[in-house]
Amino acid sequence: MSSKPAPAPAGEGARIPSIMKSHTTHLTLTLPERMAFRNITPDVTKLVAASGVREGLCLVNAMHITASVFINDDEPGLHADYKKWLEHLAPFDASPQAYAHNRTGEDNADAHMKRQIMGREVVVAITEGKLDFGPPGRDCHERQKANHPHASAGLVWGRTKG
Amino acid sequence: MSSKPAPAPAGEGARIPSIMKSHTTHLTLTLPERMAFRNITPDVTKLVAASGVREGLCLVNAMHITASVFINDDEPGLHADYKKWLEHLAPFDASPQAYAHNRTGEDNADAHMKRQIMGREVVVAITEGKLDFGPPGRDCHERQKANHPHASAGLVWGRTKG
Amino acid sequence: MSSKPAPAPAGEGARIPSIMKSHTTHLTLTLPERMAFRNITPDVTKLVAASGVREGLCLVNAMHITASVFINDDEPGLHADYKKWLEHLAPFDASPQAYAHNRTGEDNADAHMKRQIMGREVVVAITEGKLDFGPPGRDCHERQKANHPHASAGLVWGRTKG
Repeated sequence: MSSKPAPAPAGEGARIPSIMKSHTTHLTLTLPERMAFRNITPDVTKLVAASGVREGLCLVNAMHITASVFINDDEPGLHADYKKWLEHLAPFDASPQAYAHNRTGEDNADAHMKRQIMGREVVVAITEGKLDFGPPGRDCHERQKANHPHASAGLVWGRTKG
Repeated sequence: MSSKPAPAPAGEGARIPSIMKSHTTHLTLTLPERMAFRNITPDVTKLVAASGVREGLCLVNAMHITASVFINDDEPGLHADYKKWLEHLAPFDASPQAYAHNRTGEDNADAHMKRQIMGREVVVAITEGKLDFGPPGRDCHERQKANHPHASAGLVWGRTKG
Repeated sequence: MSSKPAPAPAGEGARIPSIMKSHTTHLTLTLPERMAFRNITPDVTKLVAASGVREGLCLVNAMHITASVFINDDEPGLHADYKKWLEHLAPFDASPQAYAHNRTGEDNADAHMKRQIMGREVVVAITEGKLDFGPPGRDCHERQKANHPHASAGLVWGRTKG
């Protein structure tokens, strides 16, 4: 395993009082289907640019408990596979016999399970003012072969003293 | 898709030196059953209030590797569904024939799998001193119908310069 | 449920201007198998020490979308169980008949699903300069029995005012 600092991170090692910022935006998506995928990376990229943050964290989370935010390939075949797979793992069934949750009058118990598989949130490092998807040429949406080198990033962020 | 800033976030756009704080609490839960659910939102809400943090992040994570922290509906029917579903995906079986992990003398290999489905942690934005579960009237526990608008929130947080 | 502050957190309650730092490292792992596990805790521990951060957050995320970062027991039997279980939930099949994603010329649709189960990232609190896996004597890799007390930690981190 090789380990190296990220390329030229702004302020690496600097110990000066910082200008802290936070910036929150709510996105509203209306999807007519019971299950659908929408790529919000362009929205998040704009948000990061608008924030002015150079080094920090970007939290993106679903605001509904039957929705998910995740990072994966924006490829129609994969989305079709995800739909089929999630339906297999947690099939839609509106009846209260199939799911006790549907006794509440809802029909979406399956979606509460699908959400746990796909996750609620992602936290992405911001490096030099951009979402950090890794070294140049190896981004989050790269379609890699098996046996490729795999990379992990560790971001430590916080106070050096009280 | 519509995108708008969160309503009146405190200090939005402000670029002043900040008073940074961190505040950590450990909760201990004793649950007699092999699988059970406990709503710790009231505890986390108190923690956020006690912290004095106005804009920031709240990380809540399980400290054991067969436990999960997640955000979903605190509804008994759904909990019953989750139990049944998790048992279906990763059945309890104490034998080392079923799970190699149980050769260690433990009987909880299934729980290590259930934990991966339900997740270890959640990170929640703090906006104006409160856990940010979305715009007023649309909270984390809302029981929404399919086809409702789904919302995602993006929080960017960090330094504007070195 | 008992709730208590973490033992002697550095600067708990302090409200002084802080020295903010961020520190990012990319790790590159080359694993010859289609599915394998590598413990990167020692690498992350070094990264935290090198960062100089005393109170903060450590984000560790996979940089490839068929890889996962997660926290669980580094025990060979469990790893064997995970492999078998993930293969059961999302079987490898290179054919485009099994997975539409494989029409792209790739053969790794199954790995995109396995990744969703195991997760992309972990966020770990840093307390007193160390990864916070809980009170002394109860660490992240402890092999606990069922019915043990379960602990959760809540970390609130951010600005007290604009």
